[in-house]
Amino acid sequence: MATAPSAKLTPLLKDELDIVIPTIRNLDFLEMWRPFFEQYHLIIVQDGDPSKKIRVPDGFDYQLYNRNDVNRILGSKASCISFKDSACRCFGYLVSKKKYIFTIDDDCFVAKDPSGKEINALEQHIKNLLTPSTTHFFNTLYDPYREGADFVRGYPFSLREGVPTAVSHGLWLNIPDYDAPTQLVKPLERNTRYVDAVMTVPKGTLFPMCGMNLAFDRELIGPAMYFGLMGDGQPIGRYDDMWAGWCMKVICDHLGLGVKTGLPYIWHSKASNPFVNLKKEYKGIFWQEKAIPFFQSVSLPKECSSVEKCYLALAGEVKSKLGEVDPYFINLADAMVTWIEAWNMVNSPGEKPALTSLPNATSKK
Amino acid sequence: MATAPSAKLTPLLKDELDIVIPTIRNLDFLEMWRPFFEQYHLIIVQDGDPSKKIRVPDGFDYQLYNRNDVNRILGSKASCISFKDSACRCFGYLVSKKKYIFTIDDDCFVAKDPSGKEINALEQHIKNLLTPSTTHFFNTLYDPYREGADFVRGYPFSLREGVPTAVSHGLWLNIPDYDAPTQLVKPLERNTRYVDAVMTVPKGTLFPMCGMNLAFDRELIGPAMYFGLMGDGQPIGRYDDMWAGWCMKVICDHLGLGVKTGLPYIWHSKASNPFVNLKKEYKGIFWQEKAIPFFQSVSLPKECSSVEKCYLALAGEVKSKLGEVDPYFINLADAMVTWIEAWNMVNSPGEKPALTSLPNATSKK
Repeated sequence: MATAPSAKLTPLLKDELDIVIPTIRNLDFLEMWRPFFEQYHLIIVQDGDPSKKIRVPDGFDYQLYNRNDVNRILGSKASCISFKDSACRCFGYLVSKKKYIFTIDDDCFVAKDPSGKEINALEQHIKNLLTPSTTHFFNTLYDPYREGADFVRGYPFSLREGVPTAVSHGLWLNIPDYDAPTQLVKPLERNTRYVDAVMTVPKGTLFPMCGMNLAFDRELIGPAMYFGLMGDGQPIGRYDDMWAGWCMKVICDHLGLGVKTGLPYIWHSKASNPFVNLKKEYKGIFWQEKAIPFFQSVSLPKECSSVEKCYLALAGEVKSKLGEVDPYFINLADAMVTWIEAWNMVNSPGEKPALTSLPNATSKK
Repeated sequence: MATAPSAKLTPLLKDELDIVIPTIRNLDFLEMWRPFFEQYHLIIVQDGDPSKKIRVPDGFDYQLYNRNDVNRILGSKASCISFKDSACRCFGYLVSKKKYIFTIDDDCFVAKDPSGKEINALEQHIKNLLTPSTTHFFNTLYDPYREGADFVRGYPFSLREGVPTAVSHGLWLNIPDYDAPTQLVKPLERNTRYVDAVMTVPKGTLFPMCGMNLAFDRELIGPAMYFGLMGDGQPIGRYDDMWAGWCMKVICDHLGLGVKTGLPYIWHSKASNPFVNLKKEYKGIFWQEKAIPFFQSVSLPKECSSVEKCYLALAGEVKSKLGEVDPYFINLADAMVTWIEAWNMVNSPGEKPALTSLPNATSKK
């Protein structure tokens, strides 16, 4: 019996979400993600040498930006975008015109749940973003908005509407996201535990945000998602996502927005070189001992009612408080300001149509 | 081939932990727990009519206290122990001479993990209590002290020693711990999701502590584990464990102690009557809207360096701030003071030997 091929279902938020991928290599990993990504638009940020040709598998709708594009679009403000570091991914957030962003590393593959089913990570992120967060009170049965769950006895009714979710932080099976010292000490450790939960990171609590498998509401929190100055010419690497996570969380707490972590898992295929990582990280390892108390105690003025205002206020605090730790933070604070200027330049209402038709970035439909 | 029966292994903390069970019925449920409990000492607190005979399965080492025992041991201070409510369980914490307490309801059975293996809930609680908590910073891969897990990249090294764990809060498969309105709305909801995680409730975050499946370090936090005035003659029920949880958490945060939630699961067999529950709870449902902001904002003076001092300071705050909400809280604040007096009376160094040889409480070895 012959049946007609079924029409493809339209995935959630198909026209409202961009997938941002920073890379230095051919994107063969997308083949595995094809069933889940192929109907979305991709923004590929090519790291390093712009003359290198990056191959993207056929059938994907994408725009590819290399360093020349970054320089051309941002002009003098391009200095805030890192070079030779995956921190460059935040350029993709800046030029996106969509409400939501999902960002993933090119060494992340599709994971399987305990039943052996392939996990549609993007769909889970979208579910996380489209349901509220419970920032003010901890629910012991995890995400109360999930099917089969609810708020437990003793959870105040006035808090059950939750707050809008700005960020969904996903996890990793196989290679855990460890720092260089832990990698060195436990080279063979693999994450095999599938924890079937999504939870809100409570208000006032910081967490280590990893950029490998991350989604966010760009309209709610986009300007806070700056990945800092890392890589080429900078004294530090591998703290891009951490920096963004600390800044973002402080601002979410101030503005009453939620951050979730847990599902979905991706399969992280490849441990990066711990010796190289140690070189990148070692300053961060002691700087973070000053930075964490700073972020735990910083408070933003009441007048800061937008993400941009919060971010500029935070940049000022970084300069005055962390600038004493190392001059790097003075440069970083300046770059934070430049980033907001760049964001506003590219995202001001009049600029939007012009940018989408930029002739030079490699585009393919 | 005949083999000699293997000698029983000595379970963890066998002589340092009491199992406290409040009950009104025969304790047949212990049969199911025999492999896990039989080498520990049980403290059974008989609720309601003291003339009723409670049957305990053979082979358990226990001491049973009824209301007459409570009155005899505490004298005028017995007023702080609730009658006809499972809140009476805290009397068991008070008369225990051990460092650790595990308390469980008599409608809680042994649960199975996803592989079908029976879960030794007590052993998991002990593991939770004997490893530190991570109160100051959130670890995205959950309990970093568990085998196969660690702190992730970006977790400050200075915080990796954690803090001592005072409380381990376990969860429930089958009947979730819902309030009466949720029970009424979702009578058929069952918790079937096994979340393979233990996590710290971060500093500054309150949570709904359920007394059904709970363990704690009595030396670290015992005097804060008062379950309040509930049941007979009181305007409220089913908030005994919540009250203890809020008080305990504020004090743990002040003293730098940790609280964990997650594993282990027990199998909660029986949904209580939602109509009866609504009658017990309804005042609590609106009072908690005042109580939660109170506990979220209360701060204890620096001089409060012991649990007892913290608890008395908290009682003073309850009286002055929540006394305005309802006179019940004035009585409760007085009972909190009486509880500490009773605790000190029974637990003062000179009293310890006398109490263990009390002639009247039903004891069986």
